[in-house]
Amino acid sequence: METDALSTTLAALADPTRRSILQRLSEGPATVKELGSPFQMSGPAISKHLRVLENAGLIETSQVGQTRPRTLQPAALAPVVDWTESMRRTWEVKHDALATYLADIQERGTA
Amino acid sequence: METDALSTTLAALADPTRRSILQRLSEGPATVKELGSPFQMSGPAISKHLRVLENAGLIETSQVGQTRPRTLQPAALAPVVDWTESMRRTWEVKHDALATYLADIQERGTA
Repeated sequence: METDALSTTLAALADPTRRSILQRLSEGPATVKELGSPFQMSGPAISKHLRVLENAGLIETSQVGQTRPRTLQPAALAPVVDWTESMRRTWEVKHDALATYLADIQERGTA
Repeated sequence: METDALSTTLAALADPTRRSILQRLSEGPATVKELGSPFQMSGPAISKHLRVLENAGLIETSQVGQTRPRTLQPAALAPVVDWTESMRRTWEVKHDALATYLADIQERGTA
C-alpha cells in the first residue's frame, strides 16, 4: 500500500459522504451530531468517515466546552489543486506545441 | 460501495504510479511497454493500473498498426477541478463574510 500524502488526500475525497461533510464544514465548524443528521447513517459510520478525513489532514477536532466541533482545514486541498493544475498546464503546453507544429506545416504547405 | 463518477476518478488518482502514468501520457500517447519501463513492475501490474485509469475515463486505448497506445483524456479531470474550485470558493466567501463581520464589530466598538 502506498501512503504518500497526496494519495491519502485523494482517497479521503473519493467518497460522496465525505465530500458532503467537507462541503458542510466549508460553511463553518460542526459537531458529529450536526454532521450526521443529513445522512441515513449511524454515529459510528459518520465517526469512521471523520477519522478518514482527519487522518488526511482535511479536518481538525477542537474542544469547545462539552462539544468537540470539527473544523475544515482547507490548506490540505492545496496539493490536489497543485497536481491537477500541473497536469492541465503540461497538457496545454503539449497541446499548444502540437497546434503550432500543425499550423507551421499547413503554412509551409500553402506558401 | 458508492460508484459516482467523481469518486471513481478520485480513487483512480489516489495512487502515485497511476499519477505518474498520467503525467507521462500528458506528454503524448504511449504503449503499455513504454508506460511500464520507468517502474519496477510486471506487465500485469501495469495493465491493472491502466484498467483502473480507463474505467475512470482518464485514458483511452487506440489501435495503431500492431500497437495499442494509450491516450490521456484530460476532460475527465474537469470534475475534480470543478469540485476543488467550488470548495475553495465556498470557503473564501465564508471567510470574507467572517472578516467583514469582525471588521464591522471592531468598527462599532471603536466608533
